[in-house]
Amino acid sequence: MLAARMYGYKQPLVLEDVETPQISSTQVLVRVGGAGMCRSDVQLIDGYFEGAIKPKFPITPGHEIAGLVEAIGDDVPETAKLAIGDQVVVAAGWGDGICRQCRVGNEQICEHGSWPGFGPPGGYAEFVPVPYRQLIRVEKKLKWEELAPLTDAGVTPYRGIKKLRAAGVLGPDRVMAVFGASGLGSYAVQYAKLLSSGATVVVFARNQEKLAIAKERGADCIINTRDKSLNDLRNELVRLTGKAKLDAAIDCVGAVETIQTGFGLLATAGAFVSVGLVGNRIDIPLFPFTAGEFTYHGSFWANYSDLQEVLTLAQQGKIQHSIKRSRFQDINENLEMLRRGDIIGRAVIVFDVNAATPDHKVGRDLVSV
Amino acid sequence: MLAARMYGYKQPLVLEDVETPQISSTQVLVRVGGAGMCRSDVQLIDGYFEGAIKPKFPITPGHEIAGLVEAIGDDVPETAKLAIGDQVVVAAGWGDGICRQCRVGNEQICEHGSWPGFGPPGGYAEFVPVPYRQLIRVEKKLKWEELAPLTDAGVTPYRGIKKLRAAGVLGPDRVMAVFGASGLGSYAVQYAKLLSSGATVVVFARNQEKLAIAKERGADCIINTRDKSLNDLRNELVRLTGKAKLDAAIDCVGAVETIQTGFGLLATAGAFVSVGLVGNRIDIPLFPFTAGEFTYHGSFWANYSDLQEVLTLAQQGKIQHSIKRSRFQDINENLEMLRRGDIIGRAVIVFDVNAATPDHKVGRDLVSV
Amino acid sequence: MLAARMYGYKQPLVLEDVETPQISSTQVLVRVGGAGMCRSDVQLIDGYFEGAIKPKFPITPGHEIAGLVEAIGDDVPETAKLAIGDQVVVAAGWGDGICRQCRVGNEQICEHGSWPGFGPPGGYAEFVPVPYRQLIRVEKKLKWEELAPLTDAGVTPYRGIKKLRAAGVLGPDRVMAVFGASGLGSYAVQYAKLLSSGATVVVFARNQEKLAIAKERGADCIINTRDKSLNDLRNELVRLTGKAKLDAAIDCVGAVETIQTGFGLLATAGAFVSVGLVGNRIDIPLFPFTAGEFTYHGSFWANYSDLQEVLTLAQQGKIQHSIKRSRFQDINENLEMLRRGDIIGRAVIVFDVNAATPDHKVGRDLVSV
Amino acid sequence: MLAARMYGYKQPLVLEDVETPQISSTQVLVRVGGAGMCRSDVQLIDGYFEGAIKPKFPITPGHEIAGLVEAIGDDVPETAKLAIGDQVVVAAGWGDGICRQCRVGNEQICEHGSWPGFGPPGGYAEFVPVPYRQLIRVEKKLKWEELAPLTDAGVTPYRGIKKLRAAGVLGPDRVMAVFGASGLGSYAVQYAKLLSSGATVVVFARNQEKLAIAKERGADCIINTRDKSLNDLRNELVRLTGKAKLDAAIDCVGAVETIQTGFGLLATAGAFVSVGLVGNRIDIPLFPFTAGEFTYHGSFWANYSDLQEVLTLAQQGKIQHSIKRSRFQDINENLEMLRRGDIIGRAVIVFDVNAATPDHKVGRDLVSV
Repeated sequence: MLAARMYGYKQPLVLEDVETPQISSTQVLVRVGGAGMCRSDVQLIDGYFEGAIKPKFPITPGHEIAGLVEAIGDDVPETAKLAIGDQVVVAAGWGDGICRQCRVGNEQICEHGSWPGFGPPGGYAEFVPVPYRQLIRVEKKLKWEELAPLTDAGVTPYRGIKKLRAAGVLGPDRVMAVFGASGLGSYAVQYAKLLSSGATVVVFARNQEKLAIAKERGADCIINTRDKSLNDLRNELVRLTGKAKLDAAIDCVGAVETIQTGFGLLATAGAFVSVGLVGNRIDIPLFPFTAGEFTYHGSFWANYSDLQEVLTLAQQGKIQHSIKRSRFQDINENLEMLRRGDIIGRAVIVFDVNAATPDHKVGRDLVSV
Repeated sequence: MLAARMYGYKQPLVLEDVETPQISSTQVLVRVGGAGMCRSDVQLIDGYFEGAIKPKFPITPGHEIAGLVEAIGDDVPETAKLAIGDQVVVAAGWGDGICRQCRVGNEQICEHGSWPGFGPPGGYAEFVPVPYRQLIRVEKKLKWEELAPLTDAGVTPYRGIKKLRAAGVLGPDRVMAVFGASGLGSYAVQYAKLLSSGATVVVFARNQEKLAIAKERGADCIINTRDKSLNDLRNELVRLTGKAKLDAAIDCVGAVETIQTGFGLLATAGAFVSVGLVGNRIDIPLFPFTAGEFTYHGSFWANYSDLQEVLTLAQQGKIQHSIKRSRFQDINENLEMLRRGDIIGRAVIVFDVNAATPDHKVGRDLVSV
Repeated sequence: MLAARMYGYKQPLVLEDVETPQISSTQVLVRVGGAGMCRSDVQLIDGYFEGAIKPKFPITPGHEIAGLVEAIGDDVPETAKLAIGDQVVVAAGWGDGICRQCRVGNEQICEHGSWPGFGPPGGYAEFVPVPYRQLIRVEKKLKWEELAPLTDAGVTPYRGIKKLRAAGVLGPDRVMAVFGASGLGSYAVQYAKLLSSGATVVVFARNQEKLAIAKERGADCIINTRDKSLNDLRNELVRLTGKAKLDAAIDCVGAVETIQTGFGLLATAGAFVSVGLVGNRIDIPLFPFTAGEFTYHGSFWANYSDLQEVLTLAQQGKIQHSIKRSRFQDINENLEMLRRGDIIGRAVIVFDVNAATPDHKVGRDLVSV
Repeated sequence: MLAARMYGYKQPLVLEDVETPQISSTQVLVRVGGAGMCRSDVQLIDGYFEGAIKPKFPITPGHEIAGLVEAIGDDVPETAKLAIGDQVVVAAGWGDGICRQCRVGNEQICEHGSWPGFGPPGGYAEFVPVPYRQLIRVEKKLKWEELAPLTDAGVTPYRGIKKLRAAGVLGPDRVMAVFGASGLGSYAVQYAKLLSSGATVVVFARNQEKLAIAKERGADCIINTRDKSLNDLRNELVRLTGKAKLDAAIDCVGAVETIQTGFGLLATAGAFVSVGLVGNRIDIPLFPFTAGEFTYHGSFWANYSDLQEVLTLAQQGKIQHSIKRSRFQDINENLEMLRRGDIIGRAVIVFDVNAATPDHKVGRDLVSV
């Protein structure tokens, strides 16, 4: 099969022919239909995670995976209700199953866990082996480009916003901010509307085109942060919402500046959640944090249940996407565009799975866009 | 009456004779029995809060106040159950009563609120006027030096630890850390034992004498952090507790280093709460915060209910104190010692209230220690 | 002024001319614009609350009150931002201000509290005195008949549903039930949609006309319970939603049967909240309750913040009403219709406040409908 | 091997020689060291669960199991850290692993789950096969009679009290009640002290001998309920605690009367949790439940993490037991005593596992007591 593999840091992926993977008795072989391209793939290649993850090269990146069930291991129980040909998505945190986090379903933060594309082979390939417990069947078929991104870009802000909801800071007379309007942000604004029980949702970003999409996605107000001071932003917030402070904020960017701005605008007893990872530092003043009784949550990817919930929304037609369909051959060009921030919405590699034959021979004709 | 007043930043207080305050119809005049001396008094004098609080000089500091009811305003309702001569403590956050925070009882973080000693006259005086809603009657009389510090040093870590308890990270197989073993820390260790449902409590500090007291107060383990790296500390933690990570931590210091150490040792999904304010910056790495799904709470002072709970514990004899009784005349010397970190436990000015006459003339003979 | 007063149980109200009330220094005199008629007024007259409330007759019922500020007590602070002529609604739980419940804002369940219309004079009169802290100003003027019912029928289910939201059982792949489609139920269905983060909302009731309105108000499905067994209802639920169990339910009725049906359909770890009070007994089997780890919440009326949130929704045009405007003269006839369950939606007495003169003389010409 | 098996309702168990069970590749064979005898075994025999559980006879009861690892299936991973000879206890809810409840670790309430002793063979036998994920290794060896009961009697009230703790109603100035002082109750009182952050703990029961043990186990007060009215009990509560109401209560009995008494004494916004199942009905008045904003939790058995926490406490020596060691031969006599309520504390069958040989031949000499 064809796979795009990484042989070391700061090098292009190598698109090459490799053996189709074997599955163990509790795995399922998934024929990849769509593979989302994520900013963290660029970070992986650029070495951002070098301290945290130690992969053995070559590895196959790609952690946003949707596909068809191609083969099922002998010990996959019937209760899993999986059949050849089912459309499935892959929940991407694979834990050891016995630690404290796994026992409450948070396999994505298992200390002995792994994530496809960051160790186990990922979705930048025609097939990928997946533990059966990590698959979610899609009842009502959706397009590959609308499924794959849900497994990370489309579910990560969802989990983050659930933390804000649980913190009790969302409701009709509240103001909630979304920082960022790219991959994660364009989903975040939609969940902000769905989960906030009527809060006013304000999107902060620097790209006017992305902000315009955020408005279409349901933002009550948008604020372009480019070249504006905290005071400027506060004044604009007052003008648009009648309030000078944010009750809640999700940061889909993760730059030092977005974190500073977010806390700088946060109301007493407000809550802030970080999902974005563009920067690598939290650097904010202590006194307002303590005296304002702020709460700050880290939120990482999402667990199986979060993804199930997001898929329910998707199947109800409640999620809109900004997608750039891409060809597998163009993967390195697309990673480069992603690195430069030039992609509006999400780039998704779409495979022509209909051409696939049941005997594991793989059609090489990739989709053109 | 005698009062110690502040006429400007970075100057000693002036101990002088001023008029005994008049009370409004909903206030109570309290004859001060004990006034705790707090590191934040030093910070007030040194200008730490200059950006946040704009007092009109002269002001009378002193926010840890216990005393006797001397006079009661005409509109104080009977339901308040206050009588002349009652022993009372002062809850120190006085809110506007109608904002969102006040409506849930968190007057100490009211944006239009005030705190005695930081604007309204405080306890470095023989009398202080207090809104009746802010007084808690002590049923079972306690010593002044064991009451006054409860209103800040003795209640601030209590509120912080309640936030950790509410976060669901305390229990029998958990490790909880207290950073700091001074004023707040020596109380924190006791609440850690009382509120953690059986967690192993580890105190981290740099002063061996204070650590020894923490051990007496119930710490399961103590770790001296002086000249140790994060790795050293982790190894010591493993040796003492069998675990390499902290499930929960309260920082009673607030230095950049204690925050970094605390998060450096925090377990996945762990919770950290800041009550200490020695430093003025939070500066920690973003990726472990997000990927570890840490939760970080600011906790500020305490509200009326928190103080009621702490007083219940005190009246049950469950709180031990490390007190240095002081004379009012020596206030500037004591502030200087506090600035240098030379006071073990809490310094409390104790007034000789027994010499007081009922007609508001005040005995000038202060207690010797 | 004209007032409708109750002289004893099981008697019609007496519409009579009484003196306009004096206000204390912290009260506001409100000229009643609209007074909602509630099933609990009928219960009050019929003696349902005889064990719980001991009023001194005569009393003026009417606890759903909206009006205009007519006069302001001398000690009402400026921070309250109330001016003559302001449109206001009355939060109806008036607590002692110092108990545990009041300190967290739940004055409506203060053990020493009172409720206008159940002791203090209520809204079945041209004027009513109200403590200033219990008034909420309406920024964007609304009709009397759309304001008054919000203070009970329109806020009580809101608080109940907030308890379900806090219980963590609402979300995209959940089924939430509303039992009842009358006064409270027709609001509940709207909040269910607003607060449930995408749950499927099913309304259960016996009156097809009311069910049809519930559908218009946003119910995803409606189920007529008349003459149906639990099995019938479960089958209908499966047919409509694909699921056999409810994750959450709010009971706006409170009959023995609705409680039994609700718990009979509840899913493992489901949550149920009672706001309705038609019956007076909870009678359900123990084993499924325990083995299913159900949670059951009582929810009573609402507090100030709940009402503020509902008013925010109302001013954003997010709440629809089913109102029967009534004349003050017809109050006893309307109470009788309410007793028989013959009113669709909410009956609201609307006063012609425009005819009112500033000198407290009251126009007697009531609105015709 | 020897097993005590149930061939139908309302018959004695049959102690007979049966084949030692085979294990699957993911199971572990446990040589039973101790098997706790539970009131629910009597209920099982008497048909209480007939509607809920449909076992195929014969079944081997016994769900409180501690033992030694005798054999390990081939696919049990090394990460499970289990070795032949390890002392282990059995977590007793075995779920399907993929439903919503299992995904958050609550396998004991899985709708497709099972419990050893209620379907799968239980601990009234010399050996029992157990899925490896359900075993918890005991690091610091404990006596069989102190281990086995922890898996139900000793962990069920622990989970219940955690629900009260999470409800936010435990703390220094609170009163918490334990109803019942038998098997579950004598553990509940200890957890009440450990988890309640300083609440006053009151035990209500009818047996003075059991109450005396509760006092020894840490109860602050005990109240004998025999022949007392609700008013009598309230007066006694006031006399002992100074308060007339309970902030929290756990019912380890489950009789109609204990539930009525518990709610009859509950304070506004109080929380009640049912773990006992002696009766089969909840029958309480609706109005006080709703108007008092009570919260009522069902709590069923416990999950793996709960048991891990309880074992941590046990290994720290923080749990005291009231045990009656029994011989396997006397099982029917002991069940009869249990039915009559004549056992103080917990009866535990203790096997002489030291006589066991490694080759799966089983010593028949049971322990005498």
